[in-house]
Amino acid sequence: MSENISVLGLGLMGAALARTLLAAGHHVTVWNRSPEKAAPLVAQGAMSAPTPAAAVEASPLVIACVLDYPAVEEVLAQAPLAGRVIANLTTGRPAEARETAARVAGRGGDYLDGGVMAVPQMIATPGALILYSGSRSAYDRYEQALGVLARPRYVGEDPGLAPLLDLAMLTGMYGQIAGFLEAVALVRSVKYPLTEFTSELLVPWLNAMAASQPRMATAIEAGDHRTEVSNLEVNRSGMENLVRAFEDEGVPLDLLLPMKAIIDRRVARGLGHEGLSGLAEELL
Amino acid sequence: MSENISVLGLGLMGAALARTLLAAGHHVTVWNRSPEKAAPLVAQGAMSAPTPAAAVEASPLVIACVLDYPAVEEVLAQAPLAGRVIANLTTGRPAEARETAARVAGRGGDYLDGGVMAVPQMIATPGALILYSGSRSAYDRYEQALGVLARPRYVGEDPGLAPLLDLAMLTGMYGQIAGFLEAVALVRSVKYPLTEFTSELLVPWLNAMAASQPRMATAIEAGDHRTEVSNLEVNRSGMENLVRAFEDEGVPLDLLLPMKAIIDRRVARGLGHEGLSGLAEELL
Ligand SMILES: NC(=O)c1ccc[n+]([C@@H]2O[C@H](COP(=O)([O-])OP(=O)(O)OC[C@H]3O[C@@H](n4cnc5c(N)ncnc54)[C@H](OP(=O)(O)O)[C@@H]3O)[C@@H](O)[C@H]2O)c1
Ligand SMILES: NC(=O)c1ccc[n+]([C@@H]2O[C@H](COP(=O)([O-])OP(=O)(O)OC[C@H]3O[C@@H](n4cnc5c(N)ncnc54)[C@H](OP(=O)(O)O)[C@@H]3O)[C@@H](O)[C@H]2O)c1
Repeated sequence: MSENISVLGLGLMGAALARTLLAAGHHVTVWNRSPEKAAPLVAQGAMSAPTPAAAVEASPLVIACVLDYPAVEEVLAQAPLAGRVIANLTTGRPAEARETAARVAGRGGDYLDGGVMAVPQMIATPGALILYSGSRSAYDRYEQALGVLARPRYVGEDPGLAPLLDLAMLTGMYGQIAGFLEAVALVRSVKYPLTEFTSELLVPWLNAMAASQPRMATAIEAGDHRTEVSNLEVNRSGMENLVRAFEDEGVPLDLLLPMKAIIDRRVARGLGHEGLSGLAEELL
Repeated sequence: MSENISVLGLGLMGAALARTLLAAGHHVTVWNRSPEKAAPLVAQGAMSAPTPAAAVEASPLVIACVLDYPAVEEVLAQAPLAGRVIANLTTGRPAEARETAARVAGRGGDYLDGGVMAVPQMIATPGALILYSGSRSAYDRYEQALGVLARPRYVGEDPGLAPLLDLAMLTGMYGQIAGFLEAVALVRSVKYPLTEFTSELLVPWLNAMAASQPRMATAIEAGDHRTEVSNLEVNRSGMENLVRAFEDEGVPLDLLLPMKAIIDRRVARGLGHEGLSGLAEELL
């Protein structure tokens, strides 16, 4: 079904979203603060609106994708939101999403927050995912249209949920990158071929280790930290080994020192028999 | 081909190794400090030696798998090493492996160091990997026999290489676990189902992100940190967002603070246009 959809913000991401909607046959109205960015989209069949208010006016579904939430508020300030669905795909914090949702609702609009788990080049490819939270009815109404951008997944009514899970995924990624950087630093110290180490040893190992995370999550949900593999005492001595090896090779282990510290802390509490999942209790 | 192989150390790992060799039809002689652990292996067809020296005497290939390198040295102290291959699968540091290799060579033995990337339950299953370094000729002679324990991979003549790459893989894993723990802490703060988050969102995302590590490794090898995806400036503001979100939700972000610090440090040097691979230069 062909829908009328407006896109506010034509940066790298907004432009990719607008292009994809046009390609899927929707009637797309665009607006960008710097108007020249609308031209290529108009050439692909979009309508260009002179103001954000006019763009909002033009469609019952409005996608906002600008720098940050203060910019979203600025853009929506003068717009007629009543009876419209605002899908905000700008990246931000859960608290900001909750505030913006409340303001949109106060003006009669229906709010969806979106967390885009993709770079612009990945939009409309199978690997792309967008998390949505907020108005369930708005999501149900537009699931199909939004589905052309990336695999959509509705995570709950709390508008802060999509950005929170988005940030949690980024958090996991930053930890993984920290481990990668330290691993690579050690491997460089002996001039072993880095790309070979990474693609043939590290990545398959990380994928295998990630496969044990759901089991850890279940242990955390159940508060049952017994383990049949290496307990925290074994990990404590493994970490000590790691620290000494990095010292021997003259490589700083800065990025993992807090990880060592919470293992030590948990063991010092007499909980060395627990598995790694027990560390979750140190982060409450 | 059926070989004569001795196994010193019948803890969880040594016992799994000895069992697997027996099952593959080799003639296995075992020794353990506490002699009662030999009984189940004798029942499976092993010879039990009264001393480590007698066990070493019995076979041209000797696998040692005890607690740590000091224990290896103790066990080998009185043994006739000349003309034998000592494959030490005990976990330790590269520097220890190099010292033990030199001592074994000084007594006329041929040394292989091994890094076991598996828990005992995984021995002889397809996911298990053992890295070997040290004597190339010893590896070539016994590759097939050792191959029944786990997929074997020879990584180089420096005996420290197998333990170093083993530790580098563990390092990557600890970073990944740190990210997992922080992600989970954030998700718990809104009581979103943890196992669902982990298996349906986090793990596929981490696997997708790990797929970009070989590209980062190549960038590091080339010293070329240009990027077409998010540069360090974008990551710096993403991290700031993360820090504020964790504060908003009242969750400590301790495990990732050094990661934030090196991003900040690199950007402060005026290198915010680089990709994440540039951070490797901060860990030299
Ligand atoms: N790029 C990615 O890989 C990626 C991935 C996931 C999520 N996101 C998120 O998507 C959003 C947009 O990212 P992007 O990559 O498109 O960024 P971008 O290329 O830098 O574009 C930023 C957009 O925001 C607009 N803007 C900034 N301040 C504004 C203001 N005060 N009022 C109105 N418009 C304003 C800009 O307008 P002008 O053209 O006038 O400057 C431009 O359209 C961000 O929240 C980003 O975090 C991006
Ligand atoms: N388990 C794993 O998941 C795993 C994975 C990879 C690598 N590894 C490595 O494999 C090695 C053995 O691990 P494991 O799991 O078999 O440990 P374990 O079950 O605790 O067994 C330890 C073994 O070391 C022996 N030992 C300790 N101190 C000794 C000494 N001074 N002299 C002689 N023997 C001594 C013990 O003999 P007694 O029976 O007399 O105490 C026992 O045979 C370790 O280096 C470990 O890091 C283990």
